[in-house]
Amino acid sequence: MDIEKVNSMDFGEFVDVFGNIIEKCPLIAAAVWSQRPFSDLEDLENHFFAFIDALPRSGQEGILRCHPDLAGRDLQRGTLTAESQRDQSQAGLTSLDADDRLRLQRLNAQYRQRFGFPFVLAARLSDRAAVPRELARRLHCQPESELRTALGEVKKIGHLRLADLLGADPAGVESPRA
Amino acid sequence: MDIEKVNSMDFGEFVDVFGNIIEKCPLIAAAVWSQRPFSDLEDLENHFFAFIDALPRSGQEGILRCHPDLAGRDLQRGTLTAESQRDQSQAGLTSLDADDRLRLQRLNAQYRQRFGFPFVLAARLSDRAAVPRELARRLHCQPESELRTALGEVKKIGHLRLADLLGADPAGVESPRA
Repeated sequence: MDIEKVNSMDFGEFVDVFGNIIEKCPLIAAAVWSQRPFSDLEDLENHFFAFIDALPRSGQEGILRCHPDLAGRDLQRGTLTAESQRDQSQAGLTSLDADDRLRLQRLNAQYRQRFGFPFVLAARLSDRAAVPRELARRLHCQPESELRTALGEVKKIGHLRLADLLGADPAGVESPRA
Repeated sequence: MDIEKVNSMDFGEFVDVFGNIIEKCPLIAAAVWSQRPFSDLEDLENHFFAFIDALPRSGQEGILRCHPDLAGRDLQRGTLTAESQRDQSQAGLTSLDADDRLRLQRLNAQYRQRFGFPFVLAARLSDRAAVPRELARRLHCQPESELRTALGEVKKIGHLRLADLLGADPAGVESPRA
């Protein structure tokens, strides 16, 4: 899909296509449509990121709370969005053994309890061994810096999802694993 | 459900229950959770409304763009949210004859073209005869005042949905039809 095609979309089509760039936040795609035309992928994603940055803290926390736990309830129940299913699958989180899954669920619960939002990580840039290590590390960060870190992960996820749709090389963050 | 029950919810439960108070905008419920505890239904809804009012114009337009057309594509395809299905059904919009449906679809298209967002109306406070009349009337309003009118309808819809969940008499807006 090229940027001319994106710029030609009415808002219904735009929200259908880009509504889950930020997980379960079609409101953000629907707001970004107001800023068209876009010059390229980077311009488009900058509008998504600027919207996030301009939200009050409660709204930024709200974005995080729309994300599923990694290897959590939605994965078990098959209720992940298609994009999250892909992210978690590529990280190997859909094939954890029971012990590893339980360990991750405990860490997720501790994290949610401490910060009031779920642990968010660009899973496609990680793997099943690194995820619990990173979760255990971030569990000890300060709330202010952890909010910034988590929103940075939301942006990495959004960048990868936009690059999928626009057929671009996902430069600007580490390359996803093959 | 009483307000103590609401105040005891973790964010996952809160978003599950209140995620569609504002149509397809779980981000807003997820943000409002930061403001707990709530004293009553009115206090809870005021936090939803304050979040909407504080958004930039693109975000307010984005909320509107997350709403389906009345008697439109999602109704025909069976892809409305449960709450919207109920709203449109109570207004008699699920049983229009082909001529009335076509007329409404034409008016909806004109409205979207003019304002860049769909026609939003608290359908439960209207009926199948009044909807096209109101749509034809609002089609001629000025964009600034129409944005305010449409956001007012979003709030009426949210109020009715909250009152459904909290078992309260939906006072403060006109009574829904029996």
